[in-house]
Amino acid sequence: MSDSSLLNEMVDAFKCLPGVGARTAQRMSFHLLEHDREAGLRLASAIQEAIEKIGHCESCRTLTEHDLCKICSNANRDASKLCIVENPSDVIALEQATDYRGYYFVLMGKLSPLDGIGPEQLGLDLLEKRLESGEVAELILATNPTIEGEVTAHYLHELAAKQGVQATRIAHGVPVGGELDYVDSGTLSHAFDGRRAY
Amino acid sequence: MSDSSLLNEMVDAFKCLPGVGARTAQRMSFHLLEHDREAGLRLASAIQEAIEKIGHCESCRTLTEHDLCKICSNANRDASKLCIVENPSDVIALEQATDYRGYYFVLMGKLSPLDGIGPEQLGLDLLEKRLESGEVAELILATNPTIEGEVTAHYLHELAAKQGVQATRIAHGVPVGGELDYVDSGTLSHAFDGRRAY
Repeated sequence: MSDSSLLNEMVDAFKCLPGVGARTAQRMSFHLLEHDREAGLRLASAIQEAIEKIGHCESCRTLTEHDLCKICSNANRDASKLCIVENPSDVIALEQATDYRGYYFVLMGKLSPLDGIGPEQLGLDLLEKRLESGEVAELILATNPTIEGEVTAHYLHELAAKQGVQATRIAHGVPVGGELDYVDSGTLSHAFDGRRAY
Repeated sequence: MSDSSLLNEMVDAFKCLPGVGARTAQRMSFHLLEHDREAGLRLASAIQEAIEKIGHCESCRTLTEHDLCKICSNANRDASKLCIVENPSDVIALEQATDYRGYYFVLMGKLSPLDGIGPEQLGLDLLEKRLESGEVAELILATNPTIEGEVTAHYLHELAAKQGVQATRIAHGVPVGGELDYVDSGTLSHAFDGRRAY
């Protein structure tokens, strides 16, 4: 630890970032102070402004500084399809990888009763109202293939069934470009069970 | 990229940190926005305050928010010893590892003519005045054992010789706990040449 209390506070504060320990935090602090104070000030104001102004989209719950995010405010998309994902970064990934033109609903988490995360915390009342409206024909479940993600998908499937909406689940299987003997057995079994006509 | 321009700015700003690329910057931004906005605001103000208030110690050039750093303002240390290091983090490392009670002089870099870093940029005029004062009996050269560090040490040795001050260099050799056949040949050759009576 240095003798400068402001420096210590800065190093300490950097430790809140994921994957940043004491040494990395110190390296980041010294880098900004010794080599790039201008970028440091830009970083500080970018963090502050983003945190103060970014809230949640009123329709899909993703992060945005507007009332509605860009996708939800685009009336040209297909309102009959609604894709459920866990996080805002999943929306970015799907938009980059697919030509999906429907809307999204971002849970901002997954069902995890032990952590006190139930349907209410995931905004499922909002989702239910949307399904009730009869606009959605297909609910695409794109939660992560983890235990909690599967439990969440199962719950959403039942929610959709109650409203007579068809739910689909994204396919799990061998990653494209992967090799069979490097894939874990759970994935391989999924891929085998989910085989389709060639 | 997300549709939120504030979020994009935040992700972009994080890329100024050492070792942080596009993906890590995105992960850090989402982490702060989704899970820890309070820590994010604390980080922003810690960065800003540190950058605005931390300058250089008037005596040793290390980073401090005061005129003199804690070590230089401590009159109880041994003024006959002066240890030269490249960076403020080296001072922290030496203070933690050794019981050295002399003072430090921090170059905030190393001689590197190709990058336009000469004696002036390293504050060597300040150091020369200090050596002229006759207070320093031993100049301990603790620059890094890199090519530039060695060149810097050589330059400082000549500077000290001109003032009749004895210069010493920290020992280079096999790291404690290391194994001989894992050590590079340069280090091994240094260790062999620098052997001492048992």
